[in-house]
Amino acid sequence: MSTASSWERYCQYLLRDEALGFSLDVSRMHFDESLFSELAGDIERAWADLRALEGGEIANPDEGRQVGHYWLRTPSLAPGDLGEWVERVRGEINDFAAKVHSAEISAPNGNAFRHVLLVGIGGSALGPQLLADALRKANNPVDLHFLDNTDPAGIQRTLTELGDGLKETLVIVTSKSGGTPETRNGMLETEAAYAAHDLDLPKYAVAITSPSEKSTLFQKAKEDGWLAIFEMADWIGGRTSVMSAVGLLPARLIGIDTDAMLSGASAMDALTRVEDAKANPAMLLALMWHSAGGGKGGKDMVILPYCDRLALFGKYLQQLVMESLGKELDLHGNTVNQGIAVYGNKGSTDQHAYIQQLRDGLNNFFAVFVEVQDDGFAGEPLIVADGGITSGDFLQGFLRGTRDALAGNDRESITVSFDQLNGCTLGALIALFERAVSFYASLVEINAYHQPGVEAGKKAAGKFLDGVLAVSDVLKSAGGGAMSASDIHQQLGDLGDSFSVEAVYHAASHLAASRPGAFSIARGASPDADYFAAIS
Amino acid sequence: MSTASSWERYCQYLLRDEALGFSLDVSRMHFDESLFSELAGDIERAWADLRALEGGEIANPDEGRQVGHYWLRTPSLAPGDLGEWVERVRGEINDFAAKVHSAEISAPNGNAFRHVLLVGIGGSALGPQLLADALRKANNPVDLHFLDNTDPAGIQRTLTELGDGLKETLVIVTSKSGGTPETRNGMLETEAAYAAHDLDLPKYAVAITSPSEKSTLFQKAKEDGWLAIFEMADWIGGRTSVMSAVGLLPARLIGIDTDAMLSGASAMDALTRVEDAKANPAMLLALMWHSAGGGKGGKDMVILPYCDRLALFGKYLQQLVMESLGKELDLHGNTVNQGIAVYGNKGSTDQHAYIQQLRDGLNNFFAVFVEVQDDGFAGEPLIVADGGITSGDFLQGFLRGTRDALAGNDRESITVSFDQLNGCTLGALIALFERAVSFYASLVEINAYHQPGVEAGKKAAGKFLDGVLAVSDVLKSAGGGAMSASDIHQQLGDLGDSFSVEAVYHAASHLAASRPGAFSIARGASPDADYFAAIS
Repeated sequence: MSTASSWERYCQYLLRDEALGFSLDVSRMHFDESLFSELAGDIERAWADLRALEGGEIANPDEGRQVGHYWLRTPSLAPGDLGEWVERVRGEINDFAAKVHSAEISAPNGNAFRHVLLVGIGGSALGPQLLADALRKANNPVDLHFLDNTDPAGIQRTLTELGDGLKETLVIVTSKSGGTPETRNGMLETEAAYAAHDLDLPKYAVAITSPSEKSTLFQKAKEDGWLAIFEMADWIGGRTSVMSAVGLLPARLIGIDTDAMLSGASAMDALTRVEDAKANPAMLLALMWHSAGGGKGGKDMVILPYCDRLALFGKYLQQLVMESLGKELDLHGNTVNQGIAVYGNKGSTDQHAYIQQLRDGLNNFFAVFVEVQDDGFAGEPLIVADGGITSGDFLQGFLRGTRDALAGNDRESITVSFDQLNGCTLGALIALFERAVSFYASLVEINAYHQPGVEAGKKAAGKFLDGVLAVSDVLKSAGGGAMSASDIHQQLGDLGDSFSVEAVYHAASHLAASRPGAFSIARGASPDADYFAAIS
Repeated sequence: MSTASSWERYCQYLLRDEALGFSLDVSRMHFDESLFSELAGDIERAWADLRALEGGEIANPDEGRQVGHYWLRTPSLAPGDLGEWVERVRGEINDFAAKVHSAEISAPNGNAFRHVLLVGIGGSALGPQLLADALRKANNPVDLHFLDNTDPAGIQRTLTELGDGLKETLVIVTSKSGGTPETRNGMLETEAAYAAHDLDLPKYAVAITSPSEKSTLFQKAKEDGWLAIFEMADWIGGRTSVMSAVGLLPARLIGIDTDAMLSGASAMDALTRVEDAKANPAMLLALMWHSAGGGKGGKDMVILPYCDRLALFGKYLQQLVMESLGKELDLHGNTVNQGIAVYGNKGSTDQHAYIQQLRDGLNNFFAVFVEVQDDGFAGEPLIVADGGITSGDFLQGFLRGTRDALAGNDRESITVSFDQLNGCTLGALIALFERAVSFYASLVEINAYHQPGVEAGKKAAGKFLDGVLAVSDVLKSAGGGAMSASDIHQQLGDLGDSFSVEAVYHAASHLAASRPGAFSIARGASPDADYFAAIS
């Protein structure tokens, strides 16, 4: 393409909104005008799907649920009395955070809370992590720590680093169902750490969960008299929960303007309700994904924000996009194995990591640059090179240079641009991608709002834990006798039918590694010659 | 595959080393025995390439350099007097760190240094970040902060958070050539921040750089009398520099046993010199990558360490693998566009992010599980579920469950396992992948040790900065007159030939956004109707 026609193309397709200080540049994608006509029917269906979704249809049929994260930022659109509920919970959060900041709600030692420890996983951690990394200031009222896994070494390191600070640490435990094992385990480890410091967790803890007796977290928080319980509704999915209590409470506590975030998201939602594909940034984005990957995810999406504060955005989108779009079946039950792989950290740092491959290697991706025009420098910027060039000029130069270098080698890219990064625009940015995911799912006729595939791993994990206990029993019954995996398997009886020799081997290996005082392993030439024993 | 034959396959191919407490399980990859015979010639060539590399051939022809990161951990194998150099620099680092810990080298206020601020990008930051995240303990002698970009907002946030702590902060500036703009900018911003606190940077700063007048960093550190200069050799590439001063100095300062790391890497290097494909873990790994992607990178590599402390390992490998393997040309000059896309964070956390897609969606990847058998729990682990189940049992259960769930849906995976995570095994883990990258490059006949593609983006960035200055001059000359991008372009004269109207537009937009007191933009209906002006 000549530079003249690329400029025309840039002007022709640039979509922008001055109120949000936002633009979307798709000119370096390889689509042509026929895309819009070829997908016209799919686009129409997507508009209809959106109207139905926002109108309150059951969009998650597996769980019989509505999907309402859009209502969180525009409660007036929510059906029935859901809008009132949204307003009430938001008020409770703002009130609680204000009382923590004023020390009206304080640590039992009388001091203000200085730290927040968030126990949660998946959307319950990723959203708050993104918000904190993007918008925290150097003078936060509190700082934020996370337990987002069931790794005992990781949990212990975080708790040990907080150390005596636990006595001024507010704990947020987030689990909609209350049944997520990693979160439950993190909470129990935290409770034990508080007890070891002679502190009583309920006086430091709040829960974010479904207000239902089915949630064991809700039950525990109520029975033990935790400081507060914030409600999570069943129509809010984990990966789109950042504008519910899940994101609002920790963000508000560390001093983020969450009202601005909600209004930015609401403004973007309004833009993405416009039923005109070229004027609707989320539809345009979804169509670009479709064009790049042939509607089958044939290209990976590489997220490149040239902004340190957005370094976690790629990871956030990895969840939002891959969990929503990675589906085996379409809406008609056909096997389609959809999805789009997402990765990326930040520029220009990633130029020193993998831009080599993007520019020269496999052409199996499209890049999404995220630009923040105002580099956020308070005061007079430092001149770092001749002619008055600043660090921010270099940042912009690397973004533009990399975009050109990719285009020069026939690699596609999209550029999402905001004048500034703040609560409002971060809310808009998140809302843009949420809606693009929703539209893309409509275009390729899959359900973006369930996650049937995660159950298989959970079930297999549960089976493994049963196996660990069964293998432990067999070894103990053998009274110190050495047994191979096959020997143990033979003793398992019926359980052995669903628990293979290899699974027995891994369970026995794990017992020996994790309980070295109770079980031993003597290694042979290969795993079938390894022998396990209980130590009596 | 039946469970019986999968157990046989597991036993047949499991490669392990008891001294390192290491194993490599490739049984869930879809290769068969013919792989080894079909690639026999390539494997032979890879052995020969390795002998030549370790013998000191010029492996980076672009820069006329040897490639010697293997010599860093086994200096006795280095040619000539390079081994002595390795030992000397290592001694200087250990000595310096010991003196910082004992406060023999202290902050000018007489206190021990409490913080380290590392200014560097790419390998100069990623390696130290990985080491610190994996091996830092709760009671570090110092903590570690990074400036790894040229984003002024990010730089200012880090410097502001250190605040008054700057007076007890040791600064490490790392750049082999001394010419990396992001690092140079970070150093200048740091120097200005020290000056603003009435502190004199040279009394707080050390450099890691090439000991050559060509390095402006070396010159500056020498002339200004910095605390120390640690030498970087030209035969150490950025992405394999973690066991040079680049990684050793910050790691040693925060209390990591770097001698153990070097010895673990040396032990793995010895295992990966064995010229027997099935007994050599790095060759086996490289062959699996080849098998999965048809030798063309047809599958993404998803890194899943079930260990919080290895959460950055995927990001580290993203650089190591993609920058090494993402190449346009093969060794014979044929266009091949090689590479392997790499992403991943940690399990079981990522199960709540994108395992949905891995299990059900696009089958465009293979997973690499990294297992740490000992969950690192000091003391009696907490029981979190019936029967004595611990948090670590869940972690292991999720790993095994996910591996099974993926295999059950025909998705490939590799499992790399270590008994423990410590300096020794982290060194071995890094060395394993370094060598696998080296072998894979030999198998597909590309050069793993140059990065020609990153130059295009750098040149384009430089052009953009020139353009910013030229556009600034044009607008100032117009004395406040409003100009469109085309108007400005016409005034650029010869420069306009290499600087398109669109580039002018982006430069002018950047001027208006970054220097709002000096330049303005009035937006029209589309970018060709936007007008820029200098504010007089």
